[in-house]
Amino acid sequence: MTVNIALLGFGTVASGIPFLLKENGAKIISAANTDIAIAKVLVRDEAEKNSLLAQGHDYHFVTDILDIISDDSVQIVVELMGRIEPAKTFITQALQAKKHVVTANKDLLALHGAELLKVAADNQVALYYEAAVAGGIPILRTLANSYTSDKITKVLGVVNGTSNFMMTKMVDEGWTYDEALAEASRLGYAESDPTNDVDGIDAAYKMVILSQFAFGMTINFDDVRHEGIRHITPADVKLAQKLGFVIKLVGEIVERDSGIYAEVVPTFLPKSHQLATVNGVMNAVFVESIGIGEAMFYGPGAGQKPTAASVVADIIQLSHYISKSETAPAFNTFVRETVYAKKEDLLDKYYFAIETEDKSGQLLRLAELFHAENVSFEQVFQDKINEDVATIAIISHQMDLNQFDSLSDKISNLEGFTLRNTIKVI
Amino acid sequence: MTVNIALLGFGTVASGIPFLLKENGAKIISAANTDIAIAKVLVRDEAEKNSLLAQGHDYHFVTDILDIISDDSVQIVVELMGRIEPAKTFITQALQAKKHVVTANKDLLALHGAELLKVAADNQVALYYEAAVAGGIPILRTLANSYTSDKITKVLGVVNGTSNFMMTKMVDEGWTYDEALAEASRLGYAESDPTNDVDGIDAAYKMVILSQFAFGMTINFDDVRHEGIRHITPADVKLAQKLGFVIKLVGEIVERDSGIYAEVVPTFLPKSHQLATVNGVMNAVFVESIGIGEAMFYGPGAGQKPTAASVVADIIQLSHYISKSETAPAFNTFVRETVYAKKEDLLDKYYFAIETEDKSGQLLRLAELFHAENVSFEQVFQDKINEDVATIAIISHQMDLNQFDSLSDKISNLEGFTLRNTIKVI
Repeated sequence: MTVNIALLGFGTVASGIPFLLKENGAKIISAANTDIAIAKVLVRDEAEKNSLLAQGHDYHFVTDILDIISDDSVQIVVELMGRIEPAKTFITQALQAKKHVVTANKDLLALHGAELLKVAADNQVALYYEAAVAGGIPILRTLANSYTSDKITKVLGVVNGTSNFMMTKMVDEGWTYDEALAEASRLGYAESDPTNDVDGIDAAYKMVILSQFAFGMTINFDDVRHEGIRHITPADVKLAQKLGFVIKLVGEIVERDSGIYAEVVPTFLPKSHQLATVNGVMNAVFVESIGIGEAMFYGPGAGQKPTAASVVADIIQLSHYISKSETAPAFNTFVRETVYAKKEDLLDKYYFAIETEDKSGQLLRLAELFHAENVSFEQVFQDKINEDVATIAIISHQMDLNQFDSLSDKISNLEGFTLRNTIKVI
Repeated sequence: MTVNIALLGFGTVASGIPFLLKENGAKIISAANTDIAIAKVLVRDEAEKNSLLAQGHDYHFVTDILDIISDDSVQIVVELMGRIEPAKTFITQALQAKKHVVTANKDLLALHGAELLKVAADNQVALYYEAAVAGGIPILRTLANSYTSDKITKVLGVVNGTSNFMMTKMVDEGWTYDEALAEASRLGYAESDPTNDVDGIDAAYKMVILSQFAFGMTINFDDVRHEGIRHITPADVKLAQKLGFVIKLVGEIVERDSGIYAEVVPTFLPKSHQLATVNGVMNAVFVESIGIGEAMFYGPGAGQKPTAASVVADIIQLSHYISKSETAPAFNTFVRETVYAKKEDLLDKYYFAIETEDKSGQLLRLAELFHAENVSFEQVFQDKINEDVATIAIISHQMDLNQFDSLSDKISNLEGFTLRNTIKVI
């Protein structure tokens, strides 16, 4: 038999799919228990269709989604257009037509995943999306299948390749943020508007999806605190190094007695931490659990072939169920009611970089402020920036998130002081 | 419904199973689609049974395997006794009685896996063994389920915790082999006879199993070249560090045009390699493939809870199929005819540590010998050990395995020279 798939979009990732289907034909047929054929490919318009035909691609290109939705021979729809619309409408239509769907669209899943999964369940079909988090790392399927016996307490992730590439340059080469961004743009890692990558938004989307697989809870995107790397200076990086840390943009999800919490923030990571050597555009997800203990899953976060490999693995699994006439199980079956942690249950150490006039008594004012919040200093460093301005860098003892927010607020509002940066310390 | 399991053996790992079943009850029931109960536990004799009862364990202990084999209510047998016999006989009997089997017994699987898998297939039941390789790392299921779309070209593994703990001490602290072994024994990491761990035998067993999942081929255990860490000296470690390497015992499986090859040998790893920071008793498997590219899976290689977590994940998956009355698929469906690589297709650089009389002309004799084999030096270091003896350390350019074997042989037989050590360079 043959399982027919339709691709929505024929960009970089999509065009990696035929490569893998051909290169690994025998292995794929044996795993899927069937042959897999690309029956139709949706492109934007006639111009794109003609251009692709002229390049020698001999697929059955269509420009109307209904040509796919109404085609009963198409059993799996593979959405690789990205963005929210029209992807959301097309996926919904495909699911309603009782076709399984595979997608790598993390923005869509983070914002509308619950709605789409409900449409899938209502129509007894499945929505798989291994490639949506950390492209080439098979992390979602591993959480869904191999952590069934275990209870995850913490997930740490370096899951945005662009910002990790930049932070690697800033740490290893001492580059400024602007230099690192320029190089990331030159190499095509950063888009013309880099906001999603450098401000932690992309990583926050991934935390939403990871929270479902690791904790069975769906954190709202708006509830994922996220802060980016724009304000990190060579001075921050240098001090971190002196103290045995590297700085990375790290996503974290934890479960405390009161519930779960997720954030994406710049983080001081000890050099001996497994995540500290995840460099360049590579991604990794570090998982702590009561059974396995500490584990890490490392690999490419994006790229044509890694992403296509994850997409095709989903297609193979669905094809296997189709070939056996078995119901495809939901991608993730771990579902609990979402309960958010109380801020007082979230304890961390922080680094504060504060600029102030270089005159006596300034450190005392900060010390009073910390003391009033019942937070003590672990280490303090003072550096002259120029004749008039000094930086005071403070590493605090543990405080809860209420204390951190209150302290940050008070320092920001303190006359004569500028809170340049705060970084979590692991 | 309830799926009944029977445990063979109630040692450290087995006693971790009830902990996980209880601690994660709700999650496990939802993933397995059924409750899971420990119906019977096989122990050695009445004395062990009475001792366990006295400790408060209220399982249905039995001392005769037939009490389990002939019990139709037992659907999964979990073998955790270790060693070859009677485990092999008991597993065979259980499979013949159409019970699924879960085991963590890597020695048994490496030596008799093909035979046992055939018995399982003949009886339409499954044999799962995630815990057999790198205890807590879900590597086998990941290779089986997520690499279906991909073609693996190389697997590198730090998969023996004892030897990795020792090498970490030898590298980080400059300890000798004997000092590291003494500490490993003191901490309970090394057995009274450490041969399997320090000579690469245990890691070679794991290469046999990994070869099946990663390459679909079964390498005979006797065909896995293995060499241990006994001969590594502080001088080797120091030179490695000077050149930017750490030394680890690394298992490697590669596929070349002519076929596959596996070995476990001491290896110079560049400090920037992801495996270089896998320290202590931790394990990691590094996978190179044409789709994903480079990925690494890191976690604990042994221990009660990590191993139990992998065993219970297998039990859950089998229970899911039982609950749905579906045929449990084989743990690994990727099978090709095993073809071994030709030695001339296996190219590597090597480090040679050679002791010789400290007199002129000795290096020249070595140079002639390498030249005769058509191998050139990349770097040469000479060190005085005492007044009469010098060490010559050579890092070669690439050579094939025939050249390496021939060179090693010739140096060993060269009058006045002792080949103290050879280490592969990655």
